[in-house]
Amino acid sequence: MWRGTLYGLGVGPGDPELMTIKAWKLICELPVIAYPRPDSGDSLARRIARPFVPEEAIELELTIPMRIEREPARAAYDAAAAAIAAHLDEGRHVGFLCAGDPLFYGSFMYLLDRLKDDYRTVIVPGVTSPSAAAASLARPLAARADVLKVIPATAGMERLESELASADAAAIIKVGRHFDAVRAVIERAGLAQKAFLVASASNGDEIVSSLAKLPAGAQPYFSTILIYKGGEPW
Amino acid sequence: MWRGTLYGLGVGPGDPELMTIKAWKLICELPVIAYPRPDSGDSLARRIARPFVPEEAIELELTIPMRIEREPARAAYDAAAAAIAAHLDEGRHVGFLCAGDPLFYGSFMYLLDRLKDDYRTVIVPGVTSPSAAAASLARPLAARADVLKVIPATAGMERLESELASADAAAIIKVGRHFDAVRAVIERAGLAQKAFLVASASNGDEIVSSLAKLPAGAQPYFSTILIYKGGEPW
Repeated sequence: MWRGTLYGLGVGPGDPELMTIKAWKLICELPVIAYPRPDSGDSLARRIARPFVPEEAIELELTIPMRIEREPARAAYDAAAAAIAAHLDEGRHVGFLCAGDPLFYGSFMYLLDRLKDDYRTVIVPGVTSPSAAAASLARPLAARADVLKVIPATAGMERLESELASADAAAIIKVGRHFDAVRAVIERAGLAQKAFLVASASNGDEIVSSLAKLPAGAQPYFSTILIYKGGEPW
Repeated sequence: MWRGTLYGLGVGPGDPELMTIKAWKLICELPVIAYPRPDSGDSLARRIARPFVPEEAIELELTIPMRIEREPARAAYDAAAAAIAAHLDEGRHVGFLCAGDPLFYGSFMYLLDRLKDDYRTVIVPGVTSPSAAAASLARPLAARADVLKVIPATAGMERLESELASADAAAIIKVGRHFDAVRAVIERAGLAQKAFLVASASNGDEIVSSLAKLPAGAQPYFSTILIYKGGEPW
């Protein structure tokens, strides 16, 4: 039997118009639109794509626990892959919505890994949160021969400290509840004047601030701190 | 007098449909479309945007030397900024086309630096070449708490070697004529089996290959090598 294609669709960082033309067209056309939902809260990817999902689309909400333990995640991905496969087996194409870019710190790779041997897959890249944060700040992400590091706060403060020491530029992602610890590391490294936080880039309710001006406490999970060590542009 | 706004427009990695909806709409509407052209060869950004630039738009081609010496570049950016400012002073909005993302290793930051104090500026982020390369390869850029490093081959082989040693994932950009040296470093680091090259991602004439299968010699300037050390997804 003729099988459907799985599309991994990057929907960008928040503003629906920061989605690519290609992702937008596919969302308008595909019969099944799947998206991850954390076990608490609503789906960011679905919220971004909402203006473009047709009423007649079959929506497939897939609960993905945002936990660090492997087993609950593995079981959830198995179940999500099976739910997608059921549509593909009936010949229906499925678009899986991914906040940002599908292969940049996302959950899509776990579904891809489970489905790519049996089904045709197409991936549409998207704008990432560091690019959106740089645009909001109107500051460079990186230039010329700079080494740019993307460092999840969840990698730990020792790792953050050692990686910052040799970085020309950095985007610290998943800041959330690690904000105070991250700021302390940045201050010790003497980089506080070159660090800026963007929360909810391009979402309409975005916060843009130099690090020094922020109160202590948690920041939203999708906060990004950009550090650019470079001097003035030429 | 009422002044125009400068828009930095990311047009994405190559396929015109990998431009954002926002950039596309602005290109269709703005009276002046500016773009950089290297001193030899045509403008990649202009080529990507070509299907969307209206016939009645005023096009402003700005020659930017792709050199490492500062002074010729500085003079070229000064001249380009003056040419853009002349339109802004007449009240005409100007869109500056940027391949990929405007603030990710691009020339836009030099114009932004020269013009931001005197004119309103808006930046529209775009899809970068590492995201496009990951999509072409259908392999992860980075996941979970991975540290992802973007390393220009022009940073030198010693730097490449030391940064790779502590990276979980890497995107080596601007590979071009450095290909043989880069491959040698990757082989010495024992990462050849985890490294893949994508040239001209999403441009229609793209090359996707494991490193081992490529002949010696230069690769296109816009080649990206992705390395993902992570094990299998869960």
